[in-house]
Amino acid sequence: MMPLAAARAALDATLAAARAAPIAAIVLDAGGHPVAFARQDGASLFRHDIARAKALGAIGMGQDSAEIADRAARNPAFFTSVAVATGGALALSAGGVLIRSAGGQILGAIGVSGDTPDIDATCAQAGVAAFHGDR
Amino acid sequence: MMPLAAARAALDATLAAARAAPIAAIVLDAGGHPVAFARQDGASLFRHDIARAKALGAIGMGQDSAEIADRAARNPAFFTSVAVATGGALALSAGGVLIRSAGGQILGAIGVSGDTPDIDATCAQAGVAAFHGDR
Amino acid sequence: MMPLAAARAALDATLAAARAAPIAAIVLDAGGHPVAFARQDGASLFRHDIARAKALGAIGMGQDSAEIADRAARNPAFFTSVAVATGGALALSAGGVLIRSAGGQILGAIGVSGDTPDIDATCAQAGVAAFHGDR
Amino acid sequence: MMPLAAARAALDATLAAARAAPIAAIVLDAGGHPVAFARQDGASLFRHDIARAKALGAIGMGQDSAEIADRAARNPAFFTSVAVATGGALALSAGGVLIRSAGGQILGAIGVSGDTPDIDATCAQAGVAAFHGDR
Repeated sequence: MMPLAAARAALDATLAAARAAPIAAIVLDAGGHPVAFARQDGASLFRHDIARAKALGAIGMGQDSAEIADRAARNPAFFTSVAVATGGALALSAGGVLIRSAGGQILGAIGVSGDTPDIDATCAQAGVAAFHGDR
Repeated sequence: MMPLAAARAALDATLAAARAAPIAAIVLDAGGHPVAFARQDGASLFRHDIARAKALGAIGMGQDSAEIADRAARNPAFFTSVAVATGGALALSAGGVLIRSAGGQILGAIGVSGDTPDIDATCAQAGVAAFHGDR
Repeated sequence: MMPLAAARAALDATLAAARAAPIAAIVLDAGGHPVAFARQDGASLFRHDIARAKALGAIGMGQDSAEIADRAARNPAFFTSVAVATGGALALSAGGVLIRSAGGQILGAIGVSGDTPDIDATCAQAGVAAFHGDR
Repeated sequence: MMPLAAARAALDATLAAARAAPIAAIVLDAGGHPVAFARQDGASLFRHDIARAKALGAIGMGQDSAEIADRAARNPAFFTSVAVATGGALALSAGGVLIRSAGGQILGAIGVSGDTPDIDATCAQAGVAAFHGDR
């Protein structure tokens, strides 16, 4: 379960971790459905769709989008075909980070877009930490 | 322009106006792009897509979704064709309310789904009032 | 959670309840994702997509597809717009039945297509009963 | 023809061949339409779409998805264009295996996703063997 209060705490910590560039961030539940979203002033229009596809791709493949992007760099044709087969549910770049329970179960994911992939992922990880109360 | 701070104030007021049923609410900018979204605990999965389509339909047609729904009740074939032609960007039910400037310019819209159309629209109107500082 | 063993028990009971006409039946988890599916010999080709859309619509709207169909009969334009807005995730006919926990939480849904809507729904209900061990 | 009983025997043998990682497996008929599907506990959400696209791609191109993936590695632009042209009906990775009659006619295909491509293909081949009664 992904309660709105926890998703919002995660979203706020994600946004607070943004640096120079404005970002968009989304929190999805375990089924890949949106719970909370925000786009900072100045973030460009595709940021919503990219953030969502990073987070949804992480849930769909069962690993962070940074790892998926590494695999895609070695096998681009397959991951392009997955992107198409899933209707664009996958963005092949860091910034989609799974939220797991203590037992390893996927509870949801945070997706970020707007800065470099590395900074996007750092922001999302700040959100995951806030979700777990590690503030 | 739809600053995130104003969109969030509108979103929070919208959520606070919810009654018995949990809702999902979204704030779109003048281009129809998401700025802020939240889904309350227990709201069913399509609420995101329906809230978004109510708000986007309002911006796309230039009137609140309640008025669009009234027109659609008299002319369903046309509005169904618009729904298909726009790729599902329109939900024919109250709950999508335009945010306008003092001069009448469309600044964005709020979309709500989860309760009856009338209550959804009341929640969205509370959000518009908060946007304008009429609290 | 929707374990495969429980989904299969539900699916088999659903299929066993079919009468004259061959059916297709699907079990979805709480996020609307397929866990188990079977199409009986002679069931026509759209049965998969219709069964899935009945079950997914039930999860997405939070009520059985028979109730959704009743509402759609009174308000067809809105439900057509929802079908389009959700990318065809909704089939407006009986045969999609929610699976709920004792506490009322949605655990998934069963969707059936192939016979009349009433018989489809009866088959799905047999599957829900099997899921709960009410055999 | 792909009778449900034979498809289920193939599906069960496919699932039984899974090793460390949970898989999803699907059996399609000669027209590319689903007959039977199951997702093992813990398999991530995209496994359905990927398994289906592996099997459908095999039927659509007339060869196992491992061979298609080999061709795609040498000519990625063409196979990406096929994935788009067919609306995502193709996954460029091993794990989609044709089921042929003694005379070479395509009767259907099995698609598997969840483990490495090689193991996915081994699982699917176990399913094909079971279909032919070579148990």
